[in-house]
Amino acid sequence: MQLGLIGLGKMGGNMRDRLREAGHEVVGFDQNPEISDATSLDDLIGKLSAPRVVWVMVPAGVTEATIDQLAPLLSAGDVVIDGGNSRFSDDGPRAERLGALGIGYVDAGVSGGVWGKQNGYALMVGGADEHVAQAMPIFESLKPEGEFGFVHAGGVGAGHYAKMVHNGIEYGLMHAYAEGYELLEKSEFVKDVPGVFKSWREGTVVRSWLLDLLDRALDEDPTLASLRGYADDTGEGRWTVEEAIRLAVPMHVISASLFARFESRQEDSPAMKAIAALRNQFGGHAIHKS
Amino acid sequence: MQLGLIGLGKMGGNMRDRLREAGHEVVGFDQNPEISDATSLDDLIGKLSAPRVVWVMVPAGVTEATIDQLAPLLSAGDVVIDGGNSRFSDDGPRAERLGALGIGYVDAGVSGGVWGKQNGYALMVGGADEHVAQAMPIFESLKPEGEFGFVHAGGVGAGHYAKMVHNGIEYGLMHAYAEGYELLEKSEFVKDVPGVFKSWREGTVVRSWLLDLLDRALDEDPTLASLRGYADDTGEGRWTVEEAIRLAVPMHVISASLFARFESRQEDSPAMKAIAALRNQFGGHAIHKS
Amino acid sequence: MQLGLIGLGKMGGNMRDRLREAGHEVVGFDQNPEISDATSLDDLIGKLSAPRVVWVMVPAGVTEATIDQLAPLLSAGDVVIDGGNSRFSDDGPRAERLGALGIGYVDAGVSGGVWGKQNGYALMVGGADEHVAQAMPIFESLKPEGEFGFVHAGGVGAGHYAKMVHNGIEYGLMHAYAEGYELLEKSEFVKDVPGVFKSWREGTVVRSWLLDLLDRALDEDPTLASLRGYADDTGEGRWTVEEAIRLAVPMHVISASLFARFESRQEDSPAMKAIAALRNQFGGHAIHKS
Amino acid sequence: MQLGLIGLGKMGGNMRDRLREAGHEVVGFDQNPEISDATSLDDLIGKLSAPRVVWVMVPAGVTEATIDQLAPLLSAGDVVIDGGNSRFSDDGPRAERLGALGIGYVDAGVSGGVWGKQNGYALMVGGADEHVAQAMPIFESLKPEGEFGFVHAGGVGAGHYAKMVHNGIEYGLMHAYAEGYELLEKSEFVKDVPGVFKSWREGTVVRSWLLDLLDRALDEDPTLASLRGYADDTGEGRWTVEEAIRLAVPMHVISASLFARFESRQEDSPAMKAIAALRNQFGGHAIHKS
Repeated sequence: MQLGLIGLGKMGGNMRDRLREAGHEVVGFDQNPEISDATSLDDLIGKLSAPRVVWVMVPAGVTEATIDQLAPLLSAGDVVIDGGNSRFSDDGPRAERLGALGIGYVDAGVSGGVWGKQNGYALMVGGADEHVAQAMPIFESLKPEGEFGFVHAGGVGAGHYAKMVHNGIEYGLMHAYAEGYELLEKSEFVKDVPGVFKSWREGTVVRSWLLDLLDRALDEDPTLASLRGYADDTGEGRWTVEEAIRLAVPMHVISASLFARFESRQEDSPAMKAIAALRNQFGGHAIHKS
Repeated sequence: MQLGLIGLGKMGGNMRDRLREAGHEVVGFDQNPEISDATSLDDLIGKLSAPRVVWVMVPAGVTEATIDQLAPLLSAGDVVIDGGNSRFSDDGPRAERLGALGIGYVDAGVSGGVWGKQNGYALMVGGADEHVAQAMPIFESLKPEGEFGFVHAGGVGAGHYAKMVHNGIEYGLMHAYAEGYELLEKSEFVKDVPGVFKSWREGTVVRSWLLDLLDRALDEDPTLASLRGYADDTGEGRWTVEEAIRLAVPMHVISASLFARFESRQEDSPAMKAIAALRNQFGGHAIHKS
Repeated sequence: MQLGLIGLGKMGGNMRDRLREAGHEVVGFDQNPEISDATSLDDLIGKLSAPRVVWVMVPAGVTEATIDQLAPLLSAGDVVIDGGNSRFSDDGPRAERLGALGIGYVDAGVSGGVWGKQNGYALMVGGADEHVAQAMPIFESLKPEGEFGFVHAGGVGAGHYAKMVHNGIEYGLMHAYAEGYELLEKSEFVKDVPGVFKSWREGTVVRSWLLDLLDRALDEDPTLASLRGYADDTGEGRWTVEEAIRLAVPMHVISASLFARFESRQEDSPAMKAIAALRNQFGGHAIHKS
Repeated sequence: MQLGLIGLGKMGGNMRDRLREAGHEVVGFDQNPEISDATSLDDLIGKLSAPRVVWVMVPAGVTEATIDQLAPLLSAGDVVIDGGNSRFSDDGPRAERLGALGIGYVDAGVSGGVWGKQNGYALMVGGADEHVAQAMPIFESLKPEGEFGFVHAGGVGAGHYAKMVHNGIEYGLMHAYAEGYELLEKSEFVKDVPGVFKSWREGTVVRSWLLDLLDRALDEDPTLASLRGYADDTGEGRWTVEEAIRLAVPMHVISASLFARFESRQEDSPAMKAIAALRNQFGGHAIHKS
């Protein structure tokens, strides 16, 4: 089928390739004219026949503006898919605005990163049945082969919600491996830390794709000496904990993983300055000057 | 090759089957005469030709006594393997006692649970090169096929150490999924929670063997309604956190997972009674009578 | 000076008493006519001479509606104080709406609970200098004697913000004592747990007002046997963690205290059901039926 | 009464002063001859009349050796008090060894730090009734005036156990304040952070001695700019969490406070290196070179 695709970066560009390989007609638009198939949003929409399906795959910060620009160019019966990392709570209002124009809206959480082009992209989508159905051939081609890798999780917002939780879990999984890694690194018992991780790739309870990636990283740099222990966070981890707070869900593990990322970006810790100050006050413990 | 195998329970029994299928001659001993190949430890040792390899696969609580009983029956040049969940710190003293008799000692952490017979058992072993080499044909047949699933992690104790960390990581991984599960269950956005987990099995960052198992559990009972939220812990989780404390490794995630298991077994929380008492004292907040 | 006081519950009623004792003229309004000094909001405002100061001390859920009702009855030059537990982020928009009518707004975080009437109420206020000054005689009489117990923390919102952090800290402090209490209760070493807490009231690093209250509670019920370990949360704890997330502040302790309250209110834990399901799947570990 | 006091450092020296002011005859021994009242342990014991009470107040690392040296110099009926920060589990074996010689043993947890000389030292003691009674006049003079500040918590080990839990709680209390401090520091709402802490000293739920000390520290350095966020830990925090693990007590708050200290001493975090490596592997996220 025909698809308009806005945003041809690391994710969008690869998705265009995968969809074309599957026989779809993809018209892509990007601000970078060298990779764009259209000169403007107007031009893009002009090249598509109604009813159109337009996939928006731009950074979360500009998604809202892009859709607002897009809406007046579309017609009743068209469907917009937001495949970016929007907060699930933005989906409802957006769907309402588009719905007033007769335009459908589907939110699609997309996982797979740089590996998706080859392995397929896992898709978690939310929206009305008819809008999801309209885009289904696209979903079928993007997802990995087989019975897994796609879910219509619920109404508008459910796709981004499921993706948000996916990423929250991802934080926790990564941190569990990371703590185990640090303990093995520090221990005087284990002499071959990369070997231990490699051995875990088959037959163990902890085997996973993330473990495979950690093994690959340790192949390249057995003590990770070339890296700084610095990690950004991209929103979903924060929203997951915010939702846990809203819904009274205990979330010790994922929140700890999130806080560890905050810590990784601090030059010094104001909290620990307060601890140092207190220890000096009551115990005369030596302080370290900054 | 020939192997003496002590303990033919859920793990040992399956291992005997897998080893025999691979062509090894396994003489098993168990307190249950119906499944035992020997009538006593004496009888077992009598049936093996020196130099012997004897694998002890009994509950952690009786490993020490079993090895003490076994030692005087063995000869210099024999090797004892402890495949149970001993604390790594027990291995050194044990190896020393056996070493004084000329008997080798290898500690083997074994992962794979009820699936090992079919998929192979991941093995993490510690000990001297020559003792590991003596048992290598057994390890080769127990481990999963391919390049993964076995590591000689270091000297005596390193095998159990690596297995301990494996289990600690396992605690954290499981709890990350569990928190995500609870949030999805509570959310009004996602209508098909089991479908979301199933979709994650391919193409996502969170795909893993544990995820496959959770999907299988949700297939059987989509809301886990038949289960109580109760979990035992078997030692390795506790030892992992103890080691983190000894080695000054921050371990927020694995410790939180361990504490959650403690909580799951409490009828009521003394700590939360103290909180309730305090809130009543300063704010006149209503208390709930026990 | 003259003060209009809306809400004469546990807090407002005691504050009226304390202010009258200090010589102020307080006209109180409450929906309960038996304790109210005015028959309606209209009547209340009619009894005050401009420029008025009106203190709103109602449950957080009805504060917004109360102020909306109040605004058209007031005149330019009047000042409204919100002494309830509003979220700090509500203060700015509220101040703007009132400001458009020439009415000042001060947010006041109030601590002290049922002990405030006697000991004084600690006050954290936010707002413009001139509005704080207008109400200063009231603040002076409400606060404890001496140099402490009052701060003008910043512009509109700063008072509720400081009170929010106060309560977040309170969660953490209480939980630190609670964990220590539970450990002492469980230990076979310490025979006189209430005696230990009582001893800590002087000369120790952990002495505090909360400790005094815990000692008082243990005097009444040495094993807290009459209580259930159940604790509500009233908003500030959640907001504190939400702010930590917004501002990238690691907050392991206060978030753990908040999550513990969530846990205390669960009949069973969905997360731990998932753990139990997983342990059964991979290890054949026995499950407990619900 | 007469007391032998071994160790005249920051704690022991002040205790000698406080006891002498109370009219006791204290013979002190220290390796520093300038402050010592005796030339050797032999000389010290020679200067005391049996039955003797000897208080050992030396660093935890040399307590065992000091008591071993002391034992043969003493007589049946003497009592040794260990006032240092020994692990409670060392007390039982020590008491047994001394008991075989007819010598009593009391373990005394001592709180108060540099303020104890003036305010009194809070004492938590463990041991047999008759041994505690023998030293009671000393305890009476060391403790703060009034009904608080002393507890005979149980048999041998109970004193150090109670002190250990005291310090564990202290870790949690300090960290709760520290997290609140960091949030206030980061917030754009509160303009006068030291003022907020000062205001809390009266009338609030969070008032405490630690809060007073933090206020004092902020008086000296309102943004703690001169300090590094670095904190040692002295054993009791670790032991508290180890005991929580042994006794299956959930301890999220105190363990998080302990882990934060570990983090404060790391140049870089191996765990976060693993996170950075993973994020780069699956998402192509930029890494920071070390």
